[in-house]
Amino acid sequence: MFLIFASQHNDNPMNYFSSDFKLGILGGGQLGKMLLSETRKFDIQTYVLDPSPEAPGRIACNYFEQGDLMDFETVYQFGKKVNLLTIEIENVNLDALQKLEDEGLPVYPSPSTLKMIQNKGEQKDFYVHQGIPTASHERFTHIEALKSALKNEVLEFPLIWKSARFGYDGNGVKVLRSMDDFIGLPQGECIAEEMIPFKMELAVIVARNVSGEIKTYPVVEMEFHPEANQVEYVICPARIPENIAQKARETALQVSQAFNHVGLLAVEMFLTNEDDILINEVAPRPHNSGHYSIEAGYTSQFENHIRAILNLPLGNTESKVAGIMVNLVGEEGFSGPVVYENIENILAIDGVTPHIYGKKETRPFRKMGHVTIVNEDLSKARKIAEEVKNTIRVVSR
Amino acid sequence: MFLIFASQHNDNPMNYFSSDFKLGILGGGQLGKMLLSETRKFDIQTYVLDPSPEAPGRIACNYFEQGDLMDFETVYQFGKKVNLLTIEIENVNLDALQKLEDEGLPVYPSPSTLKMIQNKGEQKDFYVHQGIPTASHERFTHIEALKSALKNEVLEFPLIWKSARFGYDGNGVKVLRSMDDFIGLPQGECIAEEMIPFKMELAVIVARNVSGEIKTYPVVEMEFHPEANQVEYVICPARIPENIAQKARETALQVSQAFNHVGLLAVEMFLTNEDDILINEVAPRPHNSGHYSIEAGYTSQFENHIRAILNLPLGNTESKVAGIMVNLVGEEGFSGPVVYENIENILAIDGVTPHIYGKKETRPFRKMGHVTIVNEDLSKARKIAEEVKNTIRVVSR
Repeated sequence: MFLIFASQHNDNPMNYFSSDFKLGILGGGQLGKMLLSETRKFDIQTYVLDPSPEAPGRIACNYFEQGDLMDFETVYQFGKKVNLLTIEIENVNLDALQKLEDEGLPVYPSPSTLKMIQNKGEQKDFYVHQGIPTASHERFTHIEALKSALKNEVLEFPLIWKSARFGYDGNGVKVLRSMDDFIGLPQGECIAEEMIPFKMELAVIVARNVSGEIKTYPVVEMEFHPEANQVEYVICPARIPENIAQKARETALQVSQAFNHVGLLAVEMFLTNEDDILINEVAPRPHNSGHYSIEAGYTSQFENHIRAILNLPLGNTESKVAGIMVNLVGEEGFSGPVVYENIENILAIDGVTPHIYGKKETRPFRKMGHVTIVNEDLSKARKIAEEVKNTIRVVSR
Repeated sequence: MFLIFASQHNDNPMNYFSSDFKLGILGGGQLGKMLLSETRKFDIQTYVLDPSPEAPGRIACNYFEQGDLMDFETVYQFGKKVNLLTIEIENVNLDALQKLEDEGLPVYPSPSTLKMIQNKGEQKDFYVHQGIPTASHERFTHIEALKSALKNEVLEFPLIWKSARFGYDGNGVKVLRSMDDFIGLPQGECIAEEMIPFKMELAVIVARNVSGEIKTYPVVEMEFHPEANQVEYVICPARIPENIAQKARETALQVSQAFNHVGLLAVEMFLTNEDDILINEVAPRPHNSGHYSIEAGYTSQFENHIRAILNLPLGNTESKVAGIMVNLVGEEGFSGPVVYENIENILAIDGVTPHIYGKKETRPFRKMGHVTIVNEDLSKARKIAEEVKNTIRVVSR
């Protein structure tokens, strides 16, 4: 009787709002910055650790600490200051996270998931063991072993080389067509992946909270520049038939559940010429492919990440309107204090919202911000996105 | 020739983004806090002045100063630190603002507009002179003069007494039906307004930038509690015929243009039983009646305030979906550290977004936050809003 009585009076199990509860975020880049927009909305106290004194996420947190995310002691001591820890970047000291979790601190995503995802070989093995469709692969502890396999005709060109660790934004991935393509590649652990022709790259973000409530965002499509082989537009919803969208969302759900993942999981996939879905890789955090949701979605990916790790009910992942995202990257030939040329021209277009990350210096191809274009009509949004891309320029003074 | 050449090369006239430009905001309450969400998005440097060391707008600005907004020297010295000054509250030292403007600092809204709006007698006179429809009124320098007018039958009960200065959220307004109703009223300058029966209270927010570009937000409706005579829901769009909505928006445009206003102007109005629009009063800043636009609008009122004062093109003021706002006020009988009881229950409903302002202590009727409900169907949103209102409770531990 007493226990029931006590439980009835425990009516604030989730008192995160304007309270003493402290959420720690490892990393204060643009993803951290956009997470902080949601923690401010809910008035949740946040502590941010980032190596840069000019990190975009320095402002709008309650406490900022400059420190090395790969240093055990720095991450461990930071973790001791907070009630729950999350990440906005995968490359953090996992031993510290593991020790914090062992000592009882909730850490989402879990260090064991992060460890598996950090190594692309392990990640691929995991998909195979779980029966999740993915291109076939071979693991090599050293690049020389891959060379030998090709020389001995155990493997054949062409194939895709991927560094097992620390790949980022297309770094650490290369198509190999002959021995000459090995020039300049790093020596370390890698995988060789079968090259499967595909007609589209898709992504689905899955939100899953501590209790296991799970929702998928709509399928987005990465549209590539016809020549430069660079993603130009992230388009939501993807221009694919409903049955394929359904299959993509189901496959993404399967991946999140297989990882027993808590928080957001961005699942990147290929749609093959035969309309099969193959998992490419995942990111266990808010992701570039979900930025459109700030303006287009009922609940932004950032809000749902916060809801998921705090075990709050997830928000509606569907969209109010169509959304397209264009990355703002530093133009070639410009390095120095950034200027967003013609930003006033794109602001004059209905449904256009620039996000400026707050990096003071531009460099060629550095991600400086993004622009979201929303419209009730996806094809109109697509036209406007092209206009935006052709108008704004990230240059230096 | 040289001048034309120079002008062609001045291609960054509006370099506010990740630059040294500093925007000053007088006041760091919830309106300031929500403005900062937009300045972070655009990475515009902000300086905030507020008397409270725990102001909601303390976090997410670049520089916070604690100080008295009514003190000449404090406001003047703060203004010298910034490149452009705006307000989130009307009650600030106007002499300091005037001196800053005279010395060349852009101040929006202008001190002269603020001065007129601060005095309800002057504000009402202005409407009369401008031919803007409003209930008829008489001005009195002292409450005794109003009493005499009633005793001498120059005026008749019932009428509406309004304090000329510092009215706020229903304070400073009272219906007088007999001499007994004078008990407890302050002595100072006031107006007596004709009591005109009306069927609805409406509001329209107008955004106008420095160049004179002007846009109105959709008409919102204030729905009152049937007994308590307190606004319960702000509903967008108002449930009125299109021709009346059109008339309300046109009247609001007329008011903004009459003031030559820069920034947001929230225009509160009555819809009479004869379907006439009468201006009640205005607020020269973001306003409670526009909070719904964060989730429902293409451009939130806060973003458009920033755009307007920086002379950027205005964003689309129309809505993606219907929106309803419910204020979160402290429950009677509770004072102390705040707890948002059952917030997890309302988060479980699709399209529901709580905004927690970050005030640590609740008091009866203190504005602690608001909740926005969005839905494609306004009547569904209205039902959910009622559920939200009946579920969440702002109490103390």
